[in-house]
Amino acid sequence: MEEVSPLLYFAPVAAIIALLYAFYRSTVVKKSDMGSDRMKEIARAIQEGAMAFIGREYKSLSVFAVVVAILLVIGYTGSQRLIFISFLVGAICSGLAGYFGMRIATHANVRTTNAAKKDLNSALSIAFSGGTVMGMCVVGLGLLGLSLLFLIYMGIFGSDMETVEGTVLPILSGFSLGASSIALFARVGGGIYTKAADVGADLVGKVESGIPEDDPRNPAVIADNVGDNVGDVAGMGADLFESYVGAIIGAMVLAAAAGSMEMTILPLVLAGMGIIMSIIGTLFVRTREGGNPQNALNIGSFTAAILTAVASFFLIRHIVSEPVEVAGADVTGNGIFLATIAGLIAGTLIGLLTEYFTSEARKPARNIADASQTGAATNIIAGLANGMNSTAGPLVVIALAIMISHHYAGLYGIAMAALGMLATIGIQLSVDAYGPVADNAGGIAEMAALDPKVRERTDKLDAVGNTTAAIGKGFAIGSAALTALALFSAFKTVAKIDVLDVSEPKVMAGLFIGGMIPFVFSAFSMRAVGEASFGMIEEVRRQFKNIPGLLEGKEGVKADYARCVDISTAAALKRMIAPGVMAVLIPVIAGFYDLEFLAGLLCGVTVVGVLLAIFMANAGGSWDNAKKYIESGEYGGKGSEAHKASVVGDTVGDPFKDTSGPSLNILIKLMSVVSLIVAPIVIAL
Amino acid sequence: MEEVSPLLYFAPVAAIIALLYAFYRSTVVKKSDMGSDRMKEIARAIQEGAMAFIGREYKSLSVFAVVVAILLVIGYTGSQRLIFISFLVGAICSGLAGYFGMRIATHANVRTTNAAKKDLNSALSIAFSGGTVMGMCVVGLGLLGLSLLFLIYMGIFGSDMETVEGTVLPILSGFSLGASSIALFARVGGGIYTKAADVGADLVGKVESGIPEDDPRNPAVIADNVGDNVGDVAGMGADLFESYVGAIIGAMVLAAAAGSMEMTILPLVLAGMGIIMSIIGTLFVRTREGGNPQNALNIGSFTAAILTAVASFFLIRHIVSEPVEVAGADVTGNGIFLATIAGLIAGTLIGLLTEYFTSEARKPARNIADASQTGAATNIIAGLANGMNSTAGPLVVIALAIMISHHYAGLYGIAMAALGMLATIGIQLSVDAYGPVADNAGGIAEMAALDPKVRERTDKLDAVGNTTAAIGKGFAIGSAALTALALFSAFKTVAKIDVLDVSEPKVMAGLFIGGMIPFVFSAFSMRAVGEASFGMIEEVRRQFKNIPGLLEGKEGVKADYARCVDISTAAALKRMIAPGVMAVLIPVIAGFYDLEFLAGLLCGVTVVGVLLAIFMANAGGSWDNAKKYIESGEYGGKGSEAHKASVVGDTVGDPFKDTSGPSLNILIKLMSVVSLIVAPIVIAL
Repeated sequence: MEEVSPLLYFAPVAAIIALLYAFYRSTVVKKSDMGSDRMKEIARAIQEGAMAFIGREYKSLSVFAVVVAILLVIGYTGSQRLIFISFLVGAICSGLAGYFGMRIATHANVRTTNAAKKDLNSALSIAFSGGTVMGMCVVGLGLLGLSLLFLIYMGIFGSDMETVEGTVLPILSGFSLGASSIALFARVGGGIYTKAADVGADLVGKVESGIPEDDPRNPAVIADNVGDNVGDVAGMGADLFESYVGAIIGAMVLAAAAGSMEMTILPLVLAGMGIIMSIIGTLFVRTREGGNPQNALNIGSFTAAILTAVASFFLIRHIVSEPVEVAGADVTGNGIFLATIAGLIAGTLIGLLTEYFTSEARKPARNIADASQTGAATNIIAGLANGMNSTAGPLVVIALAIMISHHYAGLYGIAMAALGMLATIGIQLSVDAYGPVADNAGGIAEMAALDPKVRERTDKLDAVGNTTAAIGKGFAIGSAALTALALFSAFKTVAKIDVLDVSEPKVMAGLFIGGMIPFVFSAFSMRAVGEASFGMIEEVRRQFKNIPGLLEGKEGVKADYARCVDISTAAALKRMIAPGVMAVLIPVIAGFYDLEFLAGLLCGVTVVGVLLAIFMANAGGSWDNAKKYIESGEYGGKGSEAHKASVVGDTVGDPFKDTSGPSLNILIKLMSVVSLIVAPIVIAL
Repeated sequence: MEEVSPLLYFAPVAAIIALLYAFYRSTVVKKSDMGSDRMKEIARAIQEGAMAFIGREYKSLSVFAVVVAILLVIGYTGSQRLIFISFLVGAICSGLAGYFGMRIATHANVRTTNAAKKDLNSALSIAFSGGTVMGMCVVGLGLLGLSLLFLIYMGIFGSDMETVEGTVLPILSGFSLGASSIALFARVGGGIYTKAADVGADLVGKVESGIPEDDPRNPAVIADNVGDNVGDVAGMGADLFESYVGAIIGAMVLAAAAGSMEMTILPLVLAGMGIIMSIIGTLFVRTREGGNPQNALNIGSFTAAILTAVASFFLIRHIVSEPVEVAGADVTGNGIFLATIAGLIAGTLIGLLTEYFTSEARKPARNIADASQTGAATNIIAGLANGMNSTAGPLVVIALAIMISHHYAGLYGIAMAALGMLATIGIQLSVDAYGPVADNAGGIAEMAALDPKVRERTDKLDAVGNTTAAIGKGFAIGSAALTALALFSAFKTVAKIDVLDVSEPKVMAGLFIGGMIPFVFSAFSMRAVGEASFGMIEEVRRQFKNIPGLLEGKEGVKADYARCVDISTAAALKRMIAPGVMAVLIPVIAGFYDLEFLAGLLCGVTVVGVLLAIFMANAGGSWDNAKKYIESGEYGGKGSEAHKASVVGDTVGDPFKDTSGPSLNILIKLMSVVSLIVAPIVIAL
């Protein structure tokens, strides 16, 4: 394979470096002290709950994976059958990333609490190390799996452009299918788990019985902390794993269709470079006592982003050193660089808009707080209106990103714009996963009744990262939209659809039906949270009633935490099935009916999915922060009528922002990937 | 004009018959007795408030209309300039229909109350007569204006097919623009008015102060009753006026593009026939004491629908007696008939689905009632999930209707399917407008402290018509979707876009931006209701505090109703401007940028607009009925915690189902019509 640039080998090497770095960070976590016996006991309960959930979840998913693998073997013929290998490797890599990440996160929480006894920087260091393990496992396993499979398949089938386009990449795209499938179940399952526990704990504990958050008397308190791990660590990790993989594969397929080997390997090499820059970025995350951890996280993220932007300029120009003709127009290294940067800027803008529409310090959330004075109904109306209104900016930004990146580098440019957002996902995700670790640490401090100073420090850790997290969300949504479009374009190429005329009735019908799917999907997941939390509420009420002395906090009386953990686990596992299966089956059925209908359907799913995702995420975020604003003493503060109204909004917002909204990001990509996989089967019929 | 079938003259004749019938029904209302002085006084207050609002509304709208008319004269050249005449006539006809309909409705309310002292059938007769005036004015003025202008323009320019296609119909389409513009402002303005008053009256009166609905002590009670008239009578009338006109014109433009004069005049003749059948249907609406008014309304509606279906079979086959070649395929009379019937069936199905997802007697609303036990948050989540879920059926039905009607009669078939739903709008709207009259009648009975038996009878009148109204809503949404598509196809023809490739970046960008518009538009109107009701709440609280003896109901102490009426009026007029102007300006700006971008944008607006409209209407309807179900004694009945939670849902649902949701139906059509008008100007540049 002489014509393949040796730079390609840089991708697996960078991936291995990421995994080694994750291992190093995990030893940092593990060697630190866990604190008192009470703390150990609490931490063990959280860890056991989390690992038990993920164990049972993976058991269900392996049945699903085996069934899909068999269907792939049946559906494809000849060497294309190897797609089942890619699928399984993708699913396993995604699963492993979630497993390692969450395992270390549940080690890190209690150690963060213990370190917070000493000082802020020690605590930050442990919590961020916990998050970094997740971040590095995701990018490491994602890129390692992809690049090794790519090298192996090229070794087997040959590395000439025709083989890569016709054989290697179609097989490789199974990796994305595996990642997407796991992601959807993990996101939906984790989202249901965490919000059922959260809503249940809040409604009975805080609202009905008036005990504080994270109070050990609340039987759902362990389930709530487990939920942070299975939802916000494992679920989100799987989500970004598939974004990352999807963006890389989408770009590779489009590059191969354009017949350029340089452009085909570029996404892998660029991703590897992003990993190295992310690792450098993590080294900048440190603070001092009295300092602001927010700055530390920002410096780390922005360092990585700027380094990546600069390095990608040279890297892209080096790899694509001569113009490549694509669809009659010349694509240059400079053009690809501009498309990539357009994605990076678009992601940042969406993030800043997200921050504006949700932040406690801004007008939108404050207006919601204001509307809470006239009760829950006006609070809800204000939040819904804010969420709807907040779609405008991001959609315009996405539309511009599509047009600009396409202008500079064609369809490939759109995929590279997505990758531009995701190149530094290593540190982005580290920051994201740091959040639930710090949150858990605070919960443990509360439950173990430690010195209030400890809780103060963990609260400080927990309170920050909002801006960074908001930008992370912007990247997740923006990259999902662009990745879905890249995968859609790849699907169109494979399905041999030259022109998709939307005024054709079947395409229009597909558009309508596709648009409806995100609504129905969200209804499913919201209802799942509603019903699961209903079960949780009943159980918490039952324990308060039937366990004498529990509510009064009598010495030696303990809540039955395990039962609440079981309720969340069972509900999440049961209810993740239907939406997940629906997402996989619909494109298959639609594809067998008519590929143009399916193409219309994908457009509908993507447009409406992106809109609903932004609407739900921002409505939820702004309700949350409106409540926090009131709790800071405005409009009568905690316990006032306005506060009660704001709690209603926050509770509605929970499944919005943490279950249904984020699941939609995956839905749109998963349905595109399934279509990409199913198209050759339909055409071969 | 020898080649034009004399059947065409049937259209204006039928329209005049409708207007004469409306006049006859209005004398039936006016000659009956108004009852006591107290009743007269209340009725006068409602009427004055309503007429004052509509007067001020029309004053603002005439400024808008004159500006648009001038722009049309500037934008077009030559004889096409006459479009401004069509525009003004359309606006005036729509305005007159709203004016007459609402005027008689506000005469009918108190007379219904008075007749209810006697017996149920007398009351039904007056209330339904009131509604019939609205229904007949809408179809009469709509069809009269359209058909006369069509005849006049043909008289001026000639009636050969080329002239009709190239000159007459482009000018005539201004009528639809006029109707749509008025409709949007009337719907949004009326919707804001009615819900600001309703929410204000409920939150302070019922929830805070614990006084019953329609209690004369509540200062917002007159405004609330005025709101029923300006929102549910005038607003809805303008809405259906434009649907009706849009469907007819859309079909005519597509028929002319196909070069068939028979198919061009068919929509007008079919509409005329529908009017006659609607009038026959209204004659069947009568009941006896102890009878169920629901049956009376159903018999009337279904008689009209069946007669229309049967008659249209013969009429269509007679007019289109020979196959017409359209785009390479033969369109036959039978094919057109099947497309029309497909629309009729689709509308009915959507209506039945609407009924299922909102009815008090069905599982969805009962599940929401069940979820109310755990508080307002779970009530809201359940309602939102139900609304989202309810989009599935209607969207599948719409998709099937598109494919089937297109299969039988091409793009023209889609427009005829829309017209199939709207042919009997004369009686549909009579039933719809009957609702607020009966509602007002109950309010007057309460305020005038009449015998409870009277209120019982008016309640009986008010409680029915749900199924018929649900079906009416189904027709409104379904026909809006199909009409928008027909107008979109007409726009595509005029804009000379042969193939609209959705994978073109600018079309895709248009799709994303278009999809965002209904969200932002809904946010606008919801926020307007929220803020306007906020003002109302403050005022009601102020009066209760500052007017001694008011809340206690002391003899001779009166609330300052006029001030609340003013608040609603001012808020509605102020806040209808922005969304209305936005809806008109966006397609103009987008069109001048790029017509394909605009085409993508229209697709996005239509798909997302239909989805959001169904979501909001059904979520709102089910919250409403969940509350009613609890009030019937379930889950602790009135005053229970579950009831309080359900009131929150109902209040959120108010702007959903009565302001934002219905406005979206108009938005999608208005933007298509504006595009249709703007395309020739852009092309001429």
